[in-house]
Amino acid sequence: MDLHARKQTLRLLSNGVYVITSTTGARYGAATATWISQASFKPPLVMAAIRRDSNVFACLMESRTAAVHILDRGQEAMAQRFFSPTKVLGDTINGEPFLPGSTRAPVLRNAKAYFEAVVHHTFMLGDHAVVVMEVVEAECRGDVCPLTVEASPWEYGG
Amino acid sequence: MDLHARKQTLRLLSNGVYVITSTTGARYGAATATWISQASFKPPLVMAAIRRDSNVFACLMESRTAAVHILDRGQEAMAQRFFSPTKVLGDTINGEPFLPGSTRAPVLRNAKAYFEAVVHHTFMLGDHAVVVMEVVEAECRGDVCPLTVEASPWEYGG
Repeated sequence: MDLHARKQTLRLLSNGVYVITSTTGARYGAATATWISQASFKPPLVMAAIRRDSNVFACLMESRTAAVHILDRGQEAMAQRFFSPTKVLGDTINGEPFLPGSTRAPVLRNAKAYFEAVVHHTFMLGDHAVVVMEVVEAECRGDVCPLTVEASPWEYGG
Repeated sequence: MDLHARKQTLRLLSNGVYVITSTTGARYGAATATWISQASFKPPLVMAAIRRDSNVFACLMESRTAAVHILDRGQEAMAQRFFSPTKVLGDTINGEPFLPGSTRAPVLRNAKAYFEAVVHHTFMLGDHAVVVMEVVEAECRGDVCPLTVEASPWEYGG
């Protein structure tokens, strides 16, 4: 296999830019993620590939819950904040105000759309875990024009 | 949970438009799919949620191989062809010329980019199966501006 062709081709898969959050006890995890897709209508499942060495993955494995935020075009700075290690100060996480959601996962107040989910299965197959979650709560506050990887300054994949 | 909000929010997840193909013995399956994402760099894994009642899923479960084609903007008519049941006539599948790939999965000649993959695991959790595959071959013939669901006439999700 031509490794350059493989990288080129995999980078043609279309993805959005999301922030995934989770908490367990006093520990919090939050990270920008792009490898997320719906996986079923009934029940409403979502699959996410999440770095196995991340704090958010450790939290999610314990709490079995997470929130996924859909970023809007123009929210690149918000995405960037979650490239850094998770830091909670008062009611902010990486500088972003949050409230506990119905699953207790941190819900970012500046995200216009998000869902909360309960983890059904995690599969440890590669450097990212495949996490299959059922959506249990969702909110969409106004119009959103989702930020995509393609429209962002970043690349992830290949 | 507000079901309208759930539908609205899940439709904000960004996806591309792909054609996935597979064959086993004399049987062929091909379908348009959108719920596909990379899932690992090392090894190079991709996760796809595929309708469990589809012909392509039946083929892929037997052959353990598939090809995923990335459609270009302007190839909506090609996507539409694979909304219909699979029909092979000579060296065409649903009217599209193909050649057997290195895994034997049908490779569509009019797709500018595709990869072939070997199925590692299938998880039957919802109305779509979550299929985790390892990329074993890839080709990118020229520039591609990937067709996205958002830029297409269709919606899938919610």
